[in-house]
Amino acid sequence: MALVGAGPGCKDLITLRGAQRLQEADVIFFDRLIDPEVLDLAPANAKRIYVGKAPGCHHWPQEKISQALVAIAGQGQRVVRLKCGDPGVFARGAEEIDALDAADIPYEIIPGVTAASAASAALGGFLTERGTCDTLVLATGQTAKDADNANWIAQLQPGTRMAIYMGVGAAANTAKALIEAGLEKQVSIDIVSRAQQSDQVTAKCRASTLLETIETSGISNPAIMFLTWPQSATKVNSPQRG
Amino acid sequence: MALVGAGPGCKDLITLRGAQRLQEADVIFFDRLIDPEVLDLAPANAKRIYVGKAPGCHHWPQEKISQALVAIAGQGQRVVRLKCGDPGVFARGAEEIDALDAADIPYEIIPGVTAASAASAALGGFLTERGTCDTLVLATGQTAKDADNANWIAQLQPGTRMAIYMGVGAAANTAKALIEAGLEKQVSIDIVSRAQQSDQVTAKCRASTLLETIETSGISNPAIMFLTWPQSATKVNSPQRG
Repeated sequence: MALVGAGPGCKDLITLRGAQRLQEADVIFFDRLIDPEVLDLAPANAKRIYVGKAPGCHHWPQEKISQALVAIAGQGQRVVRLKCGDPGVFARGAEEIDALDAADIPYEIIPGVTAASAASAALGGFLTERGTCDTLVLATGQTAKDADNANWIAQLQPGTRMAIYMGVGAAANTAKALIEAGLEKQVSIDIVSRAQQSDQVTAKCRASTLLETIETSGISNPAIMFLTWPQSATKVNSPQRG
Repeated sequence: MALVGAGPGCKDLITLRGAQRLQEADVIFFDRLIDPEVLDLAPANAKRIYVGKAPGCHHWPQEKISQALVAIAGQGQRVVRLKCGDPGVFARGAEEIDALDAADIPYEIIPGVTAASAASAALGGFLTERGTCDTLVLATGQTAKDADNANWIAQLQPGTRMAIYMGVGAAANTAKALIEAGLEKQVSIDIVSRAQQSDQVTAKCRASTLLETIETSGISNPAIMFLTWPQSATKVNSPQRG
């Protein structure tokens, strides 16, 4: 039983170890954003089971996925649970691991390229930049939608880049929080939708033009929103931050 | 010309795309922590150039690396610049890219599995955990050695995990900062040295036992130090935090 990170979607950004587990698999459980080409790495007769969750439409409840993994791996079949990106980053694997542990089924976790790395590479740049952006914060749109903006925005400091996964749904709150914190001028925003795919879209803006930019660029999730506050830019004309 | 993330070191955690660029390479420039097995993916007659930097002993100054990349790629040779982990995370690629841009040499950045993902998978767990750890902060020992602890430790909040890359050198300051912030009980520490290698070492402790743990475990860099402050643990008996 292997939990495998597929990388950002395209077939050749999975690791060699991940590809090998797919080649050996009897059964593969895969998510909504997995590119069909990644599944082509598995043998033609391997069983492919779609357990994807579209927002607001849970195809397979989590408990059913966990039970199926335990049942099929328990029969001695070679099971791959294929997750987008890195299974350790916003991939909600804890319930599956807990079920496997409870059933005493051994498993390995095979790390993958997380979406922020893929998106940054697609922009031709780096997530961290020595002396300018020495800290990287990974958060989700869900966190950025938090009514209490002080909590998450306090983690955005000079010298920090924040990557918000699935950030489009939280764009209105993100823009509001940045403007209220007096960070319109200090923080630049880059958005990458469907990083490393043929239909990748990128855009660049500031908080005040974020909603307009998303609309005119036709950007939607899956997208990474980067908020960058370089070390050199100091805060001006702002109220006290939480 | 390709900047390729080799992943955490072992041969099979590089991506398929990264492996392919190695297979096509004429010349490879590689760093200190690259496992020799990764280089075996390249043709036997490809030229392998070690440009590693040991702490306090710069084998090749950065400017010399940049000049060599430009010179050799400029001759039309297929060059791979192989970096540990993900080239976007604490890999100091900016100067090389700037030199390539200035010489008008096209390049691609191929993302890789970053050390935090590899270390977390090696522990059998996840970097983020929904409801418990919804935010992940990547920092370096250099940042954590900062005399002004208030800056970096303010990014450690309830529901946050911080991964400190090359954290061993900053252990004394990290422990001091955690204790002064009243976080001895709230924050658990996991250290993974040489993640995913045959000589991997892991340890678990609290701030007050960090230095002793590092010494008795024989842990040294390259190591990732995880500081975890779960959402449920609230701060007690502490002074005001910056």
